[in-house]
Amino acid sequence: MSNPFDVLALGNAIVDVLAPVDDSFLVAHGLRKGGMQLVDEARALALYDAMGATTIVSGGSAANTVAGLASFGAKAAFLGKVRDDEAGHAFTHDIRAMGVHFPTPAAIEGPSTARCLVLVTPDGQRTMNTYLGACQNLTVGDLDAVAIKGAQVLYLEGYLWDPPHAKQAFVEAAAIAHGAGRQVALTLSDTFCVDRYRDEFLELIRQGVVDIVFANESELHALYQTADFDAAVAALRGEKVLAAVTRSEKGACILRGGKMHSVPAAPIEKLVDTTGAGDLFAAGFLAGYTRGLALDHCARLGALAAAEIIQHFGARPEVNLAELAAQSGYVHAL
Amino acid sequence: MSNPFDVLALGNAIVDVLAPVDDSFLVAHGLRKGGMQLVDEARALALYDAMGATTIVSGGSAANTVAGLASFGAKAAFLGKVRDDEAGHAFTHDIRAMGVHFPTPAAIEGPSTARCLVLVTPDGQRTMNTYLGACQNLTVGDLDAVAIKGAQVLYLEGYLWDPPHAKQAFVEAAAIAHGAGRQVALTLSDTFCVDRYRDEFLELIRQGVVDIVFANESELHALYQTADFDAAVAALRGEKVLAAVTRSEKGACILRGGKMHSVPAAPIEKLVDTTGAGDLFAAGFLAGYTRGLALDHCARLGALAAAEIIQHFGARPEVNLAELAAQSGYVHAL
Repeated sequence: MSNPFDVLALGNAIVDVLAPVDDSFLVAHGLRKGGMQLVDEARALALYDAMGATTIVSGGSAANTVAGLASFGAKAAFLGKVRDDEAGHAFTHDIRAMGVHFPTPAAIEGPSTARCLVLVTPDGQRTMNTYLGACQNLTVGDLDAVAIKGAQVLYLEGYLWDPPHAKQAFVEAAAIAHGAGRQVALTLSDTFCVDRYRDEFLELIRQGVVDIVFANESELHALYQTADFDAAVAALRGEKVLAAVTRSEKGACILRGGKMHSVPAAPIEKLVDTTGAGDLFAAGFLAGYTRGLALDHCARLGALAAAEIIQHFGARPEVNLAELAAQSGYVHAL
Repeated sequence: MSNPFDVLALGNAIVDVLAPVDDSFLVAHGLRKGGMQLVDEARALALYDAMGATTIVSGGSAANTVAGLASFGAKAAFLGKVRDDEAGHAFTHDIRAMGVHFPTPAAIEGPSTARCLVLVTPDGQRTMNTYLGACQNLTVGDLDAVAIKGAQVLYLEGYLWDPPHAKQAFVEAAAIAHGAGRQVALTLSDTFCVDRYRDEFLELIRQGVVDIVFANESELHALYQTADFDAAVAALRGEKVLAAVTRSEKGACILRGGKMHSVPAAPIEKLVDTTGAGDLFAAGFLAGYTRGLALDHCARLGALAAAEIIQHFGARPEVNLAELAAQSGYVHAL
């Protein structure tokens, strides 16, 4: 079968609104550092009013991943829902400008395009507050079955479990992909997301709905409800999936068939904003994976892309990742 | 007289839409590197479609300057016109979030909020394409005479000469300020702006409409139509104004009463985007000037703020400039 796409992602289509804040801002507004929490429109407006001057960039976890894939030169597609407002136009422009196929029509009524208010503390951690808006209107009807069947890997974000219709679309998309002999990947998104949907995520893994799992260390701990990394890894080894676990400055490890490959983190000059680190690790990993590279090379490409993204504000690459990979000695890999 | 404001600025209220491009993009679209050109809405849309993924931040030359002043802890106000659209809301949020008094009501009809498409080449130079939009509706009626009379310095951008009504507001605002015994500052904005309005700018200087002039080296060359810096400085020495001339990596020089003070550029780690360098130099200079610092100290504060802004995307400071000044040894100066 031909492969019009290396990766097709289904995710929440979100515009990120970033501002630096001090820890005291998080305390004053009762926010938990490091995670994503859902907020209603009134709460989003109140937080926005309290934030300093912002930087607005397209975001969305899976959307960041396909933007990264496109930057690596991979053929990528994205399905997600915006409203036909200024933020929706910007999201659409930006993802298409990266070379990503984005066919989902914008909603012409209903809630506005989703915003994620990203509060970046001096330690580079981001605390996210998401108003889902138009994402709530992504439905099974928005699935482009031909595109899904034509992608080597279907990439799904755990956050899709939040809007009820999107969850149905997630399950249906996975069935379409598997029906065409494709692989399905899931990112666990964040620890609070895992806390909300732990049993369902484990079921997706154990019933073979997903073949590849991306998680960071905290999400893995949350999934298996343990504070011990070795215990979490042991549990993950027992699952019949390919798993990529990111560990911040400790690098990443890849598990498959009982074997584990560890790779170090790529060097950085200065940590500015961790937003998108996991999304871009997945981009690099899948860029290599869909080209048939060895798993440790896939992980190194993931680490390279993550290192780029955490050295500036925002979760979309500011340099061409294929060129960065070439400069870093991966010229023959891609 | 009391001073509710250190500086009140009148300027075009613009949202910046930035993207990195290669030199070939400028050539393909017939753009002159390094300047600002006015574009109509159709041209703006065509350029936007051709640009890569963007970063959206509030901009506007004089608005950047008052944002910088507020970051230095100065009391700043801004008058400028937006439309009541998403971009206008973002501009309003951002400038108020910096602590700037911004009383101008948004237009409820007419053209949309102004956008500046900023193309950043790998050398850090920015090429700007401005759709003036709602700025064309800034009129004398938007002048807040009480606020103008209450500001030590009225700061005007040369770009105001582009929208005809704004030009009238510029002249009237200067008259109000001088009537209250205040000082009036003008930034020449850019070389093409100087080319458009050379005779009028010289008249403003020679007829005493402005007391302080900010220019970079190229703008000064354009003003006096010479390629020789010493000749341009000699001409400027003959004018009865305080002048601050910025020279990129060569630092800045301040001229008053026939005397010249030169200060070096502040050190930087990496040049990313020169957008706002002149705006932020003016902010630092005026932060010192309105506190009565010696001119060379004013210039050093300007150089410090310019160095911060050129090390990241966008023309609004990402750190607190008062803290940066303190860390750099200016703790007693502010």
